[in-house]
Amino acid sequence: MTAPFTSLADFRSLCAALSTPDKAAIAGATARNAQLTKPQGALGRLEDLAIWYAGWRADPRPAIRAPQVIIFAGNHGVCAQGVSAFPPEVTVQMVANFEHGGAAINQLSKAAGARMDVHALSLATPTADFTLAPAMTESELLDALQKGWSAVDPPADLLVTGEMGIGNTTSAAALAAALFGGTGADWAGRGTGVDDAGLARKVAAVDAGLALHDPRDPLEALRCLGGREIAAMAGAMAAARALRIPVILDGFICSAAAGVLHRLNPAGLDHAVAGHLSLEGAHQRLLDALGKQPLLSLGLRLGEGSGAALAITILQGAVACHSGMATFAEAGVSDA
Amino acid sequence: MTAPFTSLADFRSLCAALSTPDKAAIAGATARNAQLTKPQGALGRLEDLAIWYAGWRADPRPAIRAPQVIIFAGNHGVCAQGVSAFPPEVTVQMVANFEHGGAAINQLSKAAGARMDVHALSLATPTADFTLAPAMTESELLDALQKGWSAVDPPADLLVTGEMGIGNTTSAAALAAALFGGTGADWAGRGTGVDDAGLARKVAAVDAGLALHDPRDPLEALRCLGGREIAAMAGAMAAARALRIPVILDGFICSAAAGVLHRLNPAGLDHAVAGHLSLEGAHQRLLDALGKQPLLSLGLRLGEGSGAALAITILQGAVACHSGMATFAEAGVSDA
Repeated sequence: MTAPFTSLADFRSLCAALSTPDKAAIAGATARNAQLTKPQGALGRLEDLAIWYAGWRADPRPAIRAPQVIIFAGNHGVCAQGVSAFPPEVTVQMVANFEHGGAAINQLSKAAGARMDVHALSLATPTADFTLAPAMTESELLDALQKGWSAVDPPADLLVTGEMGIGNTTSAAALAAALFGGTGADWAGRGTGVDDAGLARKVAAVDAGLALHDPRDPLEALRCLGGREIAAMAGAMAAARALRIPVILDGFICSAAAGVLHRLNPAGLDHAVAGHLSLEGAHQRLLDALGKQPLLSLGLRLGEGSGAALAITILQGAVACHSGMATFAEAGVSDA
Repeated sequence: MTAPFTSLADFRSLCAALSTPDKAAIAGATARNAQLTKPQGALGRLEDLAIWYAGWRADPRPAIRAPQVIIFAGNHGVCAQGVSAFPPEVTVQMVANFEHGGAAINQLSKAAGARMDVHALSLATPTADFTLAPAMTESELLDALQKGWSAVDPPADLLVTGEMGIGNTTSAAALAAALFGGTGADWAGRGTGVDDAGLARKVAAVDAGLALHDPRDPLEALRCLGGREIAAMAGAMAAARALRIPVILDGFICSAAAGVLHRLNPAGLDHAVAGHLSLEGAHQRLLDALGKQPLLSLGLRLGEGSGAALAITILQGAVACHSGMATFAEAGVSDA
């Protein structure tokens, strides 16, 4: 789907005027939920999820038939600051691994019955080192947002955005700090597994980036401190909103991208749930800032959309119960 | 599979001499896990789950192809004490709902690709009211244990046991108290949704049962305070151990049944993981007694095996990653 914006100002306007869930579908789903053959509330959060999903799909008895997982990959100039345990060439190597079906996200997408797409974004041209200059030009940011938007398949009925990019937990930490306040020490974590010295370099890089740029505007924060894959995730999540496709957020980097939409519009993530709590550094702090409770907490810290892809099956279970169960009347079961 | 025990003493002997996981498979799976294309430990608990599963299946690169969900249903004489918000006839009505595919567990089993079986256990003859007499005779207990054992499909590679039985959270609370100490107030919860007066009746019933029987022996506790479906779950989980079929525990009632195996042998649940934390009363306390950390915590309190069935997809994801991912060498990805 071609992106309907040709400037950052257009994108900002789109994010100011967002779709809302269908009230009739929410009412219908709520009424149906109360009649299903179970004690009231006994499916806990699954009931809330199903009603939320029904609202966004404008269908009181919806189905999940076409989940889409999109992986965006980007390279980061800030790697020059020694912020990762892995060399930058791993980004392109892992893209090949995604394309050949060998990564965790391939297995989890397949297990969830999801289509998976991979978009490598100018891997040969890393973003600028944000400790020295803005990571992206306005043109580069716009391109990444458009590529993210266009990657969403309009017939999809559930979206997970994942990422690969050596160095991108540092970029996400700097972006989170710019969006929600705080310093490098508040937001940097161990990423792929850096040691104490590596973590100190990440903290210093974030603080240097904030000192150089400190952008108050969310899109400017994304441009100065983010990365192509992070911008593309934000673009894809915005497209999902326009298409009324519910989103499951992944871990720290995806949540930082989501934070841009949240800052552009406080209702900007109403179509999203948090798939899991990552072990990466300050993910809990970031989810708190977004006002999201994670569905899973299993100690994952991989990225790639892995935690969100795992959570697809939880949402599928919720919707399957809601739409597949018999009512008390249909089943001839006595109500309480 | 015919149960290989014809007396309670035989069953006790079986539970004293249990199978252990395959050490070579654990070593092989651990070695494989370290080579997969992800930072070490980045899949968190999924890595531990996959290695645990490999050990029980004696296969360093296993697959989950044939999960089985078994629902056992029983009726409870203790319903005469006014312990449920639903009338006892709901047990047989819900069995019909299971058989017609209308319950939550039908949808969740289907979503997980699991076979689902339903066994109604002498519903027309409830157990005795345990506040007045032992719930079961030795012969009734033996029969329920055997029926549970025989219900397990030997080619299954994962087992969930669920239950239906109006009144059975009261029975499970009494059983848990007998197994692990404490009183009705410690273990009784709101079940299908009783009010404060109903909860007080549950507490009183548990305390009355403990005062009348207070059995120190786990099988005698099961006989005096349990129910047919609870005993059958214990029998099925014991059969799974003999067949090296890993088990996912469901909520409060399933965990009380599991508690019998735990008390008969401290290693009796090594082949089981806790699928979820139920909102029902003292499930957290019960999981603590069993030494289990739940995979999910989504506010479910339905029984039927629902939380465990939802967790099947988590274990499937773990095993899919473990067995399907490429190694660093296979994918040509640089290690840290």
